[in-house]
Amino acid sequence: MSDLKNYFKYIDENKEFYIDELAKAISIKSVSGDVSRVSEVEKMGEKMESHLRDIGSKTIIRNLGQYTHPNGKTLGLPSVIFGQLGSDSSKKTVCVYGHYDVQPAEESDGWDTDPFVLTRKDSKLYGRGVSDDKAPILAWIWAVQAYQKVGLEVPVNIKFIFEGMEESGSVGLDDLINREADQFLKDVDYFCISDNYWLGTRKPCLTYGLRGLVYFFVEIEGAHADLHSGVFGGVVHEPMTDLIHLFSKLITSDGKLLIPGISNTVAPLTEKELELYKKVDFSIEDFKRSIKVGKCIQENPVDFHMARWRYPSLSIHGIQGAFSGEGSKTVIPCKVTGKFSIRLVPNQEPEKIQALVSDFLKTEFAGLQSPNKLHIYSPEGGMPWVSDPDHPNYMAGKRAIQQVYGVEPDFTREGGSIPVALTFEKATGRNVLLLPLGRGDDGAHSVNEKIDESNYINGIKLLGAYLQEVSKL
Amino acid sequence: MSDLKNYFKYIDENKEFYIDELAKAISIKSVSGDVSRVSEVEKMGEKMESHLRDIGSKTIIRNLGQYTHPNGKTLGLPSVIFGQLGSDSSKKTVCVYGHYDVQPAEESDGWDTDPFVLTRKDSKLYGRGVSDDKAPILAWIWAVQAYQKVGLEVPVNIKFIFEGMEESGSVGLDDLINREADQFLKDVDYFCISDNYWLGTRKPCLTYGLRGLVYFFVEIEGAHADLHSGVFGGVVHEPMTDLIHLFSKLITSDGKLLIPGISNTVAPLTEKELELYKKVDFSIEDFKRSIKVGKCIQENPVDFHMARWRYPSLSIHGIQGAFSGEGSKTVIPCKVTGKFSIRLVPNQEPEKIQALVSDFLKTEFAGLQSPNKLHIYSPEGGMPWVSDPDHPNYMAGKRAIQQVYGVEPDFTREGGSIPVALTFEKATGRNVLLLPLGRGDDGAHSVNEKIDESNYINGIKLLGAYLQEVSKL
Repeated sequence: MSDLKNYFKYIDENKEFYIDELAKAISIKSVSGDVSRVSEVEKMGEKMESHLRDIGSKTIIRNLGQYTHPNGKTLGLPSVIFGQLGSDSSKKTVCVYGHYDVQPAEESDGWDTDPFVLTRKDSKLYGRGVSDDKAPILAWIWAVQAYQKVGLEVPVNIKFIFEGMEESGSVGLDDLINREADQFLKDVDYFCISDNYWLGTRKPCLTYGLRGLVYFFVEIEGAHADLHSGVFGGVVHEPMTDLIHLFSKLITSDGKLLIPGISNTVAPLTEKELELYKKVDFSIEDFKRSIKVGKCIQENPVDFHMARWRYPSLSIHGIQGAFSGEGSKTVIPCKVTGKFSIRLVPNQEPEKIQALVSDFLKTEFAGLQSPNKLHIYSPEGGMPWVSDPDHPNYMAGKRAIQQVYGVEPDFTREGGSIPVALTFEKATGRNVLLLPLGRGDDGAHSVNEKIDESNYINGIKLLGAYLQEVSKL
Repeated sequence: MSDLKNYFKYIDENKEFYIDELAKAISIKSVSGDVSRVSEVEKMGEKMESHLRDIGSKTIIRNLGQYTHPNGKTLGLPSVIFGQLGSDSSKKTVCVYGHYDVQPAEESDGWDTDPFVLTRKDSKLYGRGVSDDKAPILAWIWAVQAYQKVGLEVPVNIKFIFEGMEESGSVGLDDLINREADQFLKDVDYFCISDNYWLGTRKPCLTYGLRGLVYFFVEIEGAHADLHSGVFGGVVHEPMTDLIHLFSKLITSDGKLLIPGISNTVAPLTEKELELYKKVDFSIEDFKRSIKVGKCIQENPVDFHMARWRYPSLSIHGIQGAFSGEGSKTVIPCKVTGKFSIRLVPNQEPEKIQALVSDFLKTEFAGLQSPNKLHIYSPEGGMPWVSDPDHPNYMAGKRAIQQVYGVEPDFTREGGSIPVALTFEKATGRNVLLLPLGRGDDGAHSVNEKIDESNYINGIKLLGAYLQEVSKL
């Protein structure tokens, strides 16, 4: 792969420029969830559009209209920035996606430094959004620019999609993608998303699966108002007691789902799949230390990966309507809404799981013979997504990692969701590769978010190498 | 009882004066829980002291020092007003207790009228604190004043204790009572508290029992921070799941306590006690309608009364640390504190119940084999209180009710607590009678609190007749 030697050298030589540019991006407080920062989000979108134009890309600013913020205000949605570089029909076309908005951050949350001032320390770069997702979206720009600077032809046509609403639910994006399937996305051969993380801190990975989600609201209603436990305790059926009994039927303390029939909905494990889990480089001891727990449900890595990636999990998130404050209160809450969700895996379909769970809860509730009223609500769920890790798009990613890092990547899945991956696949039928730049300890969404300098700079090389590998397919 | 004929006539003739005076008391917003109304509470205390002096009572203002309000501010405690009327060693001495502070109230809570303007409608008097406890404390004043006005000797010595902190935990009162046991309270023969309600709306009652309380905080702690259910769901032991399982072991949906050994701690039911429950005038249908529930756990009155009064109950109040807001959040809470309480009955001792429950929860938790940490905290509990309904003090109350209402009172207990009753009894060894004036539907602590005009006026007669009956013992 000697043809990228100068390319890599150029990138190494421009490290300070890339970090300076990242610092500029970090200083823009593009928090999509914060109504007071609407203009900062828009400013960051304009910056990305300007970068795209600088590398010769045509740009289109897509206005998605308005939405209702959780605070009740009607606000304009941040623009989605489309970029198109090249339209050579002899080349492959890659569509890359990233987001320019970030999670909220205040120094008072516990940051060691100002989250909106890029801070270098011990070869790490700290700041809100540095890893999620500003270094990756800039890396796409620099990867292209480096081709141009060293006099190499950009090996593929590229379509860029940068959105500013990812941290707030990507409102309107799915509709846009579906509308553009036969337009802007018509001739895309491969998708690549760089918006997740290595499994650990040592080894790059390619991510080929994500879990889906169904969320349940279980409301139990008794008397017309909250009651005094002294006056009414012992004679009324308490909604909290009913809810606790229902929820105790869902899952065991060690994570076994108790909903009858749910295990039949999970795709059988294949030998080939199992082999992938066995190869993953991972330390459960490091994992436990990082979150300060003494024991995991699984104590061997293969079972551990499968529990996060290929089996459903159920988490009880909380109860609305009960007493949740400090101190003591002797109330019998009259209406409580318990909330839990199930992470879905192939071949679970949200609608079927919703019906299975609802029916089970209704049967169990009937068994309680409570006069209270049960109401179950489950909004539209999200499908799980699994790609083919042997697909040429993944092979291109694998060879790019070998070039830059000199190792075979891990093939991983993730327990959470990146709904846009499934949306691209469903809308176009094309393969989607998740190609992360940052490490598992980057602390996206948390305080002291960072990216290692080496991950940022090697990430630029990696994305460039990936584009070249795709061009050879 | 012809000697009270003129006395009762005088009271009837002065109805408008009594209502005007009650209106003045209601206009003072003596909300002890509201820091912005400290001066109103003090003003109401001064008013009661002035009333006591008007009827010839000596008064002592007891300053209880300072306390920390839940908002963190250090505030002066409202004064406790002592009054002493008469010291004739040939007479019996009765100590009466009441409180001049009230619960919070805002018209915006749903009141039909201004809560601090006494409003007459359909022979009812509406306003915050009208039944709890301003009509009763004024009724003590008017009962004494009427003796004086009609030229009768007040038949007993009276010691008054009016506090201004009852609705905010009576901070400092127990200590004061214990200190005064050999001083101000030394020669008290009988205690009488008018601060509760008839069981229903038709028949007066004497209340001879109250339940006690133990409150439990059950904290379960897992990882060092809240976790993302997508990333961690399926591999960590979730504190919420553990808590739900523990709480499901406490009580059935139909109110049966499941803690082993707890039923052995309840005093056996006697025939005599059972007879009292059978006599109580009560409609379960009215009760269910009033709180809009379709079914009670007990559908016959004797079982119903026993469940509220002579058997323990357990209520789960809520969970702190879990997601309790609107909408959805896919969090695995790292530390949750579940809260429940048990209403205690004779012969349950708080310390023993606390040990029984803690041991049970620890055993059940060990059975879960969870690596999470369990911490149980239970603050000092309150003993149940039961008096002897055949005691002369109760017979005096019974005869007074017969004189004023022409009926035999119900003998009731209550499911809640009035801790001062037990404090008086323990500090002095003297009998305590609960002699309510208002009806069960007065709505104390709720919106549109009221007292029926007849209950207020007959209440003055009742307290006066009680004092006379005590003098004959």
